[in-house]
Amino acid sequence: MILQSDPRPVLLHGGTVVTVDGDDRVFVGDVLLHHGRIAALGPAGSVQLTPGTRVLDVTDSIVCPGFVQSHVHLCQVLFRGIAEDLALLPWLRQRIWPLEAALSAATLRASARLGIAELLLGGTTSILDMGTVHDHHVVFEAASTMGIRMTSGKAMMDRVGQSSLDEPTAASLSSSNHLADAWHGAADDRLRYAYAPRFILSCSDELLRQTVVEARARGCLMHTHASENPGEVDAVRAATGRDNVVALEERGIAGKDVVLAHCVHLSEDERASLKRHRTRVAHCPSTNLKLASGIAPIPGLLADGVVVGVGADGAPCNNRLSAFTEMRLAALLQKPAHGAEAMPARTALRLMTMGSAAVLGRDGDTGSLEPGKRADVVVVGRERPHLRPLADPVATLVHAAEAADVTHVFVDGRQLVRDRRLVHDDLGSILADAEIAVGEVAARAAIARGLP
Amino acid sequence: MILQSDPRPVLLHGGTVVTVDGDDRVFVGDVLLHHGRIAALGPAGSVQLTPGTRVLDVTDSIVCPGFVQSHVHLCQVLFRGIAEDLALLPWLRQRIWPLEAALSAATLRASARLGIAELLLGGTTSILDMGTVHDHHVVFEAASTMGIRMTSGKAMMDRVGQSSLDEPTAASLSSSNHLADAWHGAADDRLRYAYAPRFILSCSDELLRQTVVEARARGCLMHTHASENPGEVDAVRAATGRDNVVALEERGIAGKDVVLAHCVHLSEDERASLKRHRTRVAHCPSTNLKLASGIAPIPGLLADGVVVGVGADGAPCNNRLSAFTEMRLAALLQKPAHGAEAMPARTALRLMTMGSAAVLGRDGDTGSLEPGKRADVVVVGRERPHLRPLADPVATLVHAAEAADVTHVFVDGRQLVRDRRLVHDDLGSILADAEIAVGEVAARAAIARGLP
Repeated sequence: MILQSDPRPVLLHGGTVVTVDGDDRVFVGDVLLHHGRIAALGPAGSVQLTPGTRVLDVTDSIVCPGFVQSHVHLCQVLFRGIAEDLALLPWLRQRIWPLEAALSAATLRASARLGIAELLLGGTTSILDMGTVHDHHVVFEAASTMGIRMTSGKAMMDRVGQSSLDEPTAASLSSSNHLADAWHGAADDRLRYAYAPRFILSCSDELLRQTVVEARARGCLMHTHASENPGEVDAVRAATGRDNVVALEERGIAGKDVVLAHCVHLSEDERASLKRHRTRVAHCPSTNLKLASGIAPIPGLLADGVVVGVGADGAPCNNRLSAFTEMRLAALLQKPAHGAEAMPARTALRLMTMGSAAVLGRDGDTGSLEPGKRADVVVVGRERPHLRPLADPVATLVHAAEAADVTHVFVDGRQLVRDRRLVHDDLGSILADAEIAVGEVAARAAIARGLP
Repeated sequence: MILQSDPRPVLLHGGTVVTVDGDDRVFVGDVLLHHGRIAALGPAGSVQLTPGTRVLDVTDSIVCPGFVQSHVHLCQVLFRGIAEDLALLPWLRQRIWPLEAALSAATLRASARLGIAELLLGGTTSILDMGTVHDHHVVFEAASTMGIRMTSGKAMMDRVGQSSLDEPTAASLSSSNHLADAWHGAADDRLRYAYAPRFILSCSDELLRQTVVEARARGCLMHTHASENPGEVDAVRAATGRDNVVALEERGIAGKDVVLAHCVHLSEDERASLKRHRTRVAHCPSTNLKLASGIAPIPGLLADGVVVGVGADGAPCNNRLSAFTEMRLAALLQKPAHGAEAMPARTALRLMTMGSAAVLGRDGDTGSLEPGKRADVVVVGRERPHLRPLADPVATLVHAAEAADVTHVFVDGRQLVRDRRLVHDDLGSILADAEIAVGEVAARAAIARGLP
């Protein structure tokens, strides 16, 4: 489904424009969207209007690039609050895998739609998503109709006994190939496929090696988890005799088309591998705290030249999908160890926009406000007192603003959020469907909720 | 000024009630507010109504105690975003002290009103505030008229050369006494005074010793900063030959009526002093990250039996005043070091309600929803997708909810926020006054803002 952008040009007029361009330009002025692209931008009065332009007055607002989250799990949004206070491996084995196994196509759709609604309303316009094993087409259908930009793939797991989600190796590959052929490049390239072997402990060597072949044959990213948590790091060493990133590299999973979520606990060999292969890293600061994993060494990775993005990960380990929460935490967490000057707001904002866009291989057409790029644009209203006074627009975005401050959101020039509401979807039915769906899934998985 | 609570009883009907009582009861039901108190609460149908009760349908919402923040600086709210990426001592000396010195009564009022608006709209009903040196009566006037519950005091500093804010010792004491006599117990005991020597480096021994005498003579709390940041800890050792908490104890600043903000870097002697004297601790997790201070050892303090509350501290070191942000971070930050089970959501919620209330010496009448307590009550709406589905009401409050989700706020039974708006104050003029005020103050202090 190719959604139409507004046929009329749209002028976002009079806002404080935070470009995240090469010069980190910030100015008060105008941004013109046309034919799904950023047609022009500049200080007030500098943008030529064509007749018929719709003018949206965003005086007193901040205009910035849509946020890009380089690691989320739409299939898990229903599980928010059902998996509290567990470390990674028990969290997966006691809660997440049984719950994912209990999803039907209908409940998975409810989960994805709830997550996309949350992401769009909070200003996230692009995501790299990892699905569950089955029925993943419904996630693409939800993204297709709701208008978010998404690279996604079904989870691949074939290590018998890890979980009831395991598939035979050949079936995992063929169903991934089928999805990639159906969705990669769809919706005017708004949707892309990424092969998603879940993590090394749930994948056979054969599955990993064949994944590389199939993904590269189609020009798709590969997306997995690595070096997240002490328990997992130990288990990977015990199983492979190597550290995570090195073990993956030995199986061919390394390079500019590979995204490794987390990378919290990295040996020197792993650091060297990331640097040598230009492998991408998705940083998930809330999750790394919630699952007791640690704090990823992001300043060191950036100093190594590693491309880093940021993502909220899953609702059951966060428990929100807010770009604002993650970029603020990405900035704050590094300061005690690396000093107050570490991770200034402009760096955190860049990670959540251009950094994540580069992780997705889409920094050429998203991630900043520059002429010719896709019109993925967010307007942040300043009606509430925590955004006043305005002394530093970038610090305001990173340290003070919250998801609820987002007033307007455009993807490919199409307005998806207007005045803090979804334009094309009925939020009430999305919320109601989610409440019903979680009851079904929790009952099928025999996992109790903490409801009174 | 004694503000009138609603003369009619108010029934909050049908919400998910999170009591934070001794049994951490959570139920779906009703809360009745009358004569400024919680008159009754219980499962649906169990609360007897009197004729004339106003019924507020809060079905699908969460009802919880008003949040209590045990360390804030209303005088600094104007400085949000003007003091980025600095560690504590340069942050104070290069930015905060010159800016505070540049405040007039009018600009201080604008700062306090902006901060109180932000706090109330985000569900904070009680604060322990530290002011600046001069004109502090305007902060009490703002709290008096806007309806928040506040314990506050002017900052005391008399070490010549620390800052242009320094006062002579006698003047600092007499102006504090004057404010205490005017405001302690005012507004039906909604307002109280706390003597606030700023920190040991800015106070003479004489000032500290006399503060103890004056505060105890009036039954007032003492409120200061201690053991926040490596640079400050070193400076205190160099100046006094002791660690912070011990040096304060030697000058009489210890006990159940003493609140120490931060306590990030504690020696064994300091831990022992806190435990022995039952000195109170105010934990400020965002600030401790932003000023590169560290992560306070809260699980250890709680194990020692120390009473701990939580606060957002100042807008220039946070950059918000959100109870939700602080309780979420208080929970998350401890997990990497102490395990995923450390600081469950119920503990973080308790710190932000009963814990802070105990720090303020007000756990007898605030901090939980129990019959007879002051009707300081917050309703959190679940209209947005990040609060769906509802699997665990306490985890939803702590890990998913944000300040903007607060729909209704009552203090002493008086509704101050209705449908996410201030009932009695004009937010537009508060925001406009703040924007004008910060321009005046920054110009007078000759400190540049990062505006385009």
